Amino acid sequence: MIPNRNTKPSRKEIRLAGTGGQGLVLAGLILAEAAAVFDGKNAVQTQSYGPEARGGSSKSDVVISKKVIHFPKCENPDVLLCLSQKALDDNLCFLKENGFLLADADLVNEIPDGPWRVHKIPFTKIAREAIGKVVVANIVSLGAISAITKVVSLDALKEATKKRLPAKVEEMNMKALDEGYKAGLEAVGEAEEEE
Amino acid sequence: MIPNRNTKPSRKEIRLAGTGGQGLVLAGLILAEAAAVFDGKNAVQTQSYGPEARGGSSKSDVVISKKVIHFPKCENPDVLLCLSQKALDDNLCFLKENGFLLADADLVNEIPDGPWRVHKIPFTKIAREAIGKVVVANIVSLGAISAITKVVSLDALKEATKKRLPAKVEEMNMKALDEGYKAGLEAVGEAEEEE
Repeated sequence: MIPNRNTKPSRKEIRLAGTGGQGLVLAGLILAEAAAVFDGKNAVQTQSYGPEARGGSSKSDVVISKKVIHFPKCENPDVLLCLSQKALDDNLCFLKENGFLLADADLVNEIPDGPWRVHKIPFTKIAREAIGKVVVANIVSLGAISAITKVVSLDALKEATKKRLPAKVEEMNMKALDEGYKAGLEAVGEAEEEE
Repeated sequence: MIPNRNTKPSRKEIRLAGTGGQGLVLAGLILAEAAAVFDGKNAVQTQSYGPEARGGSSKSDVVISKKVIHFPKCENPDVLLCLSQKALDDNLCFLKENGFLLADADLVNEIPDGPWRVHKIPFTKIAREAIGKVVVANIVSLGAISAITKVVSLDALKEATKKRLPAKVEEMNMKALDEGYKAGLEAVGEAEEEE
């Protein structure tokens, strides 16, 4: 594997990109709160709204670091989640060399070759078939991000999700995190898992 | 009134500060979406989580501009909302000269003298007495911010609130926006209102 010369060890930038209504703002909030409040790191979470938001695109950026975050902007993500083809087309050029690309296997069809670690996972299909609710694809994605990239722990995600969402949907969202985590582990393979 | 030499005409920085549980993250989201999606401007909304978040403090920053926002950080707010004394103690030093300070009249007791336009409004009391729910103090505050600072229109706030919150609480939140707007108009006085 090519060593990643672009990454500062402590700072991780994560971009969640898709279309409006996929819950990526909420996912970004949960990810940042998990990292900060439950994993004890610093985190900054940002939404940018402009002409592209009015066109239906949505993105949410999270920066996580053990140190104080002076520059909150996510310029070159270490991790890019894409829940639509347009999200990938618009954002892939920013992904760091050797960065993680997590793409919805059914909603993203064309992924150009490049120096990225690509994982195609059917987040939306898992949400629909294993949980029974397409709307939790965002939460499934967070579970997979935890398993594949280790930027946040599964426990912290669970605590932050419980804090942020109503109790009546807690069980569903815990299951969504578990299913996403499981799919993430499968995607990276048992070998890496057992290291 | 002293002209505000620090402000770029098009860019406005708004900081919403208080304690965890007061809904300031949600308020920031609504404000940014209102400005961008319904007022047609660009907006960036940021939460920073660190040791202070683990101590119960909460803040949400919004930058609104007619132009593209290259620097998303809110360094010197034009508008500072404080729903706790600690929020004021921690953030007042950053407020721009001639900037707007909106403080909860019952939760903030000590406001140092300075070159600010200070409005003490009982956001939480209005939420409790006029709406019957303390938790909508964040939404009441947004109405007042619209009336006093004009950084966002009341109509855009209403549309963004409807989009972001469940239909069953829509009526309550529309009333909260109206009550906050009314309190804001009263705070700036009829004279300025009729200009």
